[in-house]
Amino acid sequence: MKTKNMEISIYRYLKELRSAVPLVQNITNYVVMNNTANALLAVGASPVMVHAKEELNDVVPLASAVVINIGTLSPYWIEGMLQAAELAREHKKPWVLDPVGAGISGLRNQALKRLLHLNPTVIRGNASEILALDNFGRAGGKGVDSTESSDAALNAARELNRRYGSIVCVSGEIDYIVSGDRIARVANGDPLMQKVTGLGCTSSALIGAFIGLGQNAFEEAVSGVAVTSLAGQLAAGKSDGPGTLQLHLYDCLYNLDQETLDTHLKLETDVIAS
Amino acid sequence: MKTKNMEISIYRYLKELRSAVPLVQNITNYVVMNNTANALLAVGASPVMVHAKEELNDVVPLASAVVINIGTLSPYWIEGMLQAAELAREHKKPWVLDPVGAGISGLRNQALKRLLHLNPTVIRGNASEILALDNFGRAGGKGVDSTESSDAALNAARELNRRYGSIVCVSGEIDYIVSGDRIARVANGDPLMQKVTGLGCTSSALIGAFIGLGQNAFEEAVSGVAVTSLAGQLAAGKSDGPGTLQLHLYDCLYNLDQETLDTHLKLETDVIAS
Amino acid sequence: MKTKNMEISIYRYLKELRSAVPLVQNITNYVVMNNTANALLAVGASPVMVHAKEELNDVVPLASAVVINIGTLSPYWIEGMLQAAELAREHKKPWVLDPVGAGISGLRNQALKRLLHLNPTVIRGNASEILALDNFGRAGGKGVDSTESSDAALNAARELNRRYGSIVCVSGEIDYIVSGDRIARVANGDPLMQKVTGLGCTSSALIGAFIGLGQNAFEEAVSGVAVTSLAGQLAAGKSDGPGTLQLHLYDCLYNLDQETLDTHLKLETDVIAS
Repeated sequence: MKTKNMEISIYRYLKELRSAVPLVQNITNYVVMNNTANALLAVGASPVMVHAKEELNDVVPLASAVVINIGTLSPYWIEGMLQAAELAREHKKPWVLDPVGAGISGLRNQALKRLLHLNPTVIRGNASEILALDNFGRAGGKGVDSTESSDAALNAARELNRRYGSIVCVSGEIDYIVSGDRIARVANGDPLMQKVTGLGCTSSALIGAFIGLGQNAFEEAVSGVAVTSLAGQLAAGKSDGPGTLQLHLYDCLYNLDQETLDTHLKLETDVIAS
Repeated sequence: MKTKNMEISIYRYLKELRSAVPLVQNITNYVVMNNTANALLAVGASPVMVHAKEELNDVVPLASAVVINIGTLSPYWIEGMLQAAELAREHKKPWVLDPVGAGISGLRNQALKRLLHLNPTVIRGNASEILALDNFGRAGGKGVDSTESSDAALNAARELNRRYGSIVCVSGEIDYIVSGDRIARVANGDPLMQKVTGLGCTSSALIGAFIGLGQNAFEEAVSGVAVTSLAGQLAAGKSDGPGTLQLHLYDCLYNLDQETLDTHLKLETDVIAS
Repeated sequence: MKTKNMEISIYRYLKELRSAVPLVQNITNYVVMNNTANALLAVGASPVMVHAKEELNDVVPLASAVVINIGTLSPYWIEGMLQAAELAREHKKPWVLDPVGAGISGLRNQALKRLLHLNPTVIRGNASEILALDNFGRAGGKGVDSTESSDAALNAARELNRRYGSIVCVSGEIDYIVSGDRIARVANGDPLMQKVTGLGCTSSALIGAFIGLGQNAFEEAVSGVAVTSLAGQLAAGKSDGPGTLQLHLYDCLYNLDQETLDTHLKLETDVIAS
């Protein structure tokens, strides 16, 4: 049964985020660290970027949420990621897993299997990454499905949700957010966003900012996805290319208001008959 | 006794910097490396970013100044930082300490204590960081003061100056630069600067560029702070949000001239009766 | 004998690159990772940034080309670089070496000597770096030549080409690309490009994207150099300073078309009587 648009008031979550200024602890990749910190600041959160296992014990308890993005791995960083996820569980902090490049290497797949068993609150990836994650859990894994259709990814998202309890976000032309019998679809964004590195990583970080509010993780995850895709679309509309898009994205996040959300957001939520 | 504005000719130091093109060796955090290098180039300095203990012996002697910023720590990087500070002392190179996140973890605090004992030429941080540093040196440390008032931070800055001989810069709505009985206040900047990651780190790097001139470390530190805060204010004035601010900051640093400094800089210097 | 301009159709290679979307595996420095990924996306390639020796075995075989940039070294990263270069040889993938800071430290020079012996397909550096590399191979090395004239660098480039079989690109006011008896000169670019960190690194990465086509490594290397220098020049023409230049560079790369290349590219190719 389809429920009507705007059931989730994204603006209410955005306003609360700007008021609460959640501290978001990120272990992310070298390529996007600066962008991630700037996107978090622009939306109204406060970023911290500690990766060393030697100091995560002190920092995770201070944070409202934890984001783990495996973009540029090495064994030392993997130790930090696992420790951060364990600390998040122990201190009941919501955490986001961004499985960048899932399926491309054994090191990456092994790290992801261990992180999945720590039950991320949210997993966000593209169709290919979500399919690769789902595949880890199957006996006789058959490799990453090369079709990577939206339908296949959506089934994989549901299966990951059943297996690990995680809310699963699949980024694409339409973004899907899946949890139990609920599904949300965000039809914003712009193809030019794929020409800027790390906008998926930005989406994961902003999901982290919203779930740091701790009210309703599903609606907060939808808010993070919606705000990123809409700001990216608005930024693309003002841009001559990917350089200007990246720049305007921060300004659009910073200036996002209720009127803009009401006018431009294309969000649908459904309850799926199981 | 208050001395009149413009006692320190910031433009003279800027002109000399652009002519001398000091080589500034930075060990800084992953988040801001690109911004730091670009700000140093824009102001007229030459950045180098070596962090490995295996090559600092060769590089520090070539530099005019060293900047150490502890934003993203790990044990290997701490070794490099300590070695760089020791080499700076040995080779009589001025060096700047940016104590990012002082007080948030044991690893960070231990590293800072060791770095402080190598007597930084300049320490630059926000009020909370300066208070945390001061606290390390006190018997029965009482934790970071949560009030973080400007007055408390200014007292902490004076105490750090007495204890380690360092010029201490406290960034905030008003920036303070303290050394012995001298104090300078810079009343430029813009609140939007807090929505861009690492502009404090930029200030520390530009202090490094100016103290590389080796003429008058206090006046050079004031120059670094003044130029960053003024360029940030001018950039904010042209901006729709934090994305455009970051962009314009480099252009403003690059184009900063005497007329702009004369018209817009709000700098006061005092001698404090002790 | 001078051959006429446009002997090499840069636009043809650009069009093929945009159609083939080569996967370029980069081990590069922390300062420019984001810029490198964005430049590769803007020109039409697909970047991947794996540095750990634990996963290069899986990733190099998937790539069309490998780029190794030694900007921010440590022993662990050097192991990854050597392994990536060995894997590139083994899997017959073309690879680019960017010898950032050649000559400034023993660690750097030792790493470069080992990388040179793995016969890079292309070496790209500034005059000082190319002279330093050439110097390693000489008995009784005399240190980096301080004159660094174009002529000296060109001789060094020819010598490196003879010794290692690498196509050698020397960046400067005029960019030179040398291989055997062929030489190309690109007279585009803008002095403001030197005020933006890592545009040399961008050139190396774009060379990597073009040689990933695997048709004619010399012409592809020329294409990478030409596209970077022309896009930088066009971006500088729209800019108020280095901040806006960096931004417009991505847009110019993304929008580069045949008419712009035909109108603005200053490329000459020669065959040198040996």
